[in-house]
Amino acid sequence: MNDVLEDGWEIIRFNGHSQSTLYEEVAIEAPLTIMINGSEFATIVCSPSHLRDLVVGFLASEGVIRFYNEIKEISIDEGSGFAYVELYKSIDPSQIDHSKRFIGSCCGKSRQFYFKSDVKTAKTITSKLSVTADQCFHLMKELQTNSEQFIRTGGVHNAALATSDKILTIRTDIGRHNALDKIYGHIIQEKIRLADKLIVFSGRISSEVLLKISKIGAGILVSKSAPTDLGLKLADELGITTIGFVRGRKMNIYTHPHRIIDTKTS
Amino acid sequence: MNDVLEDGWEIIRFNGHSQSTLYEEVAIEAPLTIMINGSEFATIVCSPSHLRDLVVGFLASEGVIRFYNEIKEISIDEGSGFAYVELYKSIDPSQIDHSKRFIGSCCGKSRQFYFKSDVKTAKTITSKLSVTADQCFHLMKELQTNSEQFIRTGGVHNAALATSDKILTIRTDIGRHNALDKIYGHIIQEKIRLADKLIVFSGRISSEVLLKISKIGAGILVSKSAPTDLGLKLADELGITTIGFVRGRKMNIYTHPHRIIDTKTS
Repeated sequence: MNDVLEDGWEIIRFNGHSQSTLYEEVAIEAPLTIMINGSEFATIVCSPSHLRDLVVGFLASEGVIRFYNEIKEISIDEGSGFAYVELYKSIDPSQIDHSKRFIGSCCGKSRQFYFKSDVKTAKTITSKLSVTADQCFHLMKELQTNSEQFIRTGGVHNAALATSDKILTIRTDIGRHNALDKIYGHIIQEKIRLADKLIVFSGRISSEVLLKISKIGAGILVSKSAPTDLGLKLADELGITTIGFVRGRKMNIYTHPHRIIDTKTS
Repeated sequence: MNDVLEDGWEIIRFNGHSQSTLYEEVAIEAPLTIMINGSEFATIVCSPSHLRDLVVGFLASEGVIRFYNEIKEISIDEGSGFAYVELYKSIDPSQIDHSKRFIGSCCGKSRQFYFKSDVKTAKTITSKLSVTADQCFHLMKELQTNSEQFIRTGGVHNAALATSDKILTIRTDIGRHNALDKIYGHIIQEKIRLADKLIVFSGRISSEVLLKISKIGAGILVSKSAPTDLGLKLADELGITTIGFVRGRKMNIYTHPHRIIDTKTS
């Protein structure tokens, strides 16, 4: 798997009224069609790196698999953008609802909701991991230092698996959901225990992101970006500590602050 | 339709080692389930504003409708997050492939591709509209001036319909695709001619964004953010002028620069 994630593009740059023609690096976006047991399951667009991680993480996110050993074989044809997955079980891809709605019995004013495929896999987190604010600042700085591509193209997101004091694995994608799915796929394949791990992320904290964090099984999400109210309601319900707007030495703790050691909770 | 797009959330803010508890505004994210002729079609998460525009634009983007008069009735129950659409024609929602891949005959090294639903609706743009760089700078400034919510929550995208010298309509959403679909729905309902219009946008320019611009029928896309290579290849093929990274008085022209009046093209 190569890591060519950028392509050159000839552009005209205006700076006020002066203009110049130059070559600029642009993030590569490529379609990937996932075939399961010979049938077309879905096509996603993604950055063409770590595609095996992406396929495994996507299938787990969608509730198609729970463990890596449910997969008999994966072969990826990067040139044509196809991933061929053979599962031990037989499934009918057309019967899998990507976007059918499930309304939980909890549904009251707060309108919590899950997609049907999430009900099987989202779980309440009971992680005992705790970190300091300094560790959060440090992890975000480390993620950004390792994200040169964003600085060059402005077009990609990063998700990382980390311990309280260092980044272990970073995955990059033009789609924030894909970046998380790549990390999820990596975790599933390597059978990594999440009890002492957290996720560091560049993207916004929406309900879909929170559901992925829950499925991954991480107790703490540290993000550079903003949350949505539905993301926070799910985080609250699922027991996940959500930290957003981590920039320099500032950050906001939105949910379950008990995992941040230096928090003076009332 | 109200425009309550934010909710208060109690947070703990760290600034270095000092911390404070405060109320912060967070962007609202709500599920919307679209029923067509009594059957569940899709559930999307969105900002709960201009939901009729969103539903109409989403159905047009997905290739379910082309014109507003194909819709017999739309009723939206905002409380429960359901939109009930009655079409004059009968369709089987399960037969509509949101994500089935179509490989065009053009497919060579460049790997252009469309989703099946796009083949019917994407079209090459022949707009004669032209604008100056100053007009692009001005339109982006106007979009941002009108985007106070982003400044407060950091969590939403904006798409606008504009003429060369002013913004006509802005739509806001936590999802950049939704923001564009809301503009598309507005255009379809109001039967707005696109010949002298352009789209001003806060989000990244991916293949999906370009396909929406093509369906909308706009000749110029002006965005604050970065493009992807696949987005640019589609723009090139579909005849759309793509301008990215419009910040202050700087901008990059990526494709079809002839519509920017002051460009010195070779």
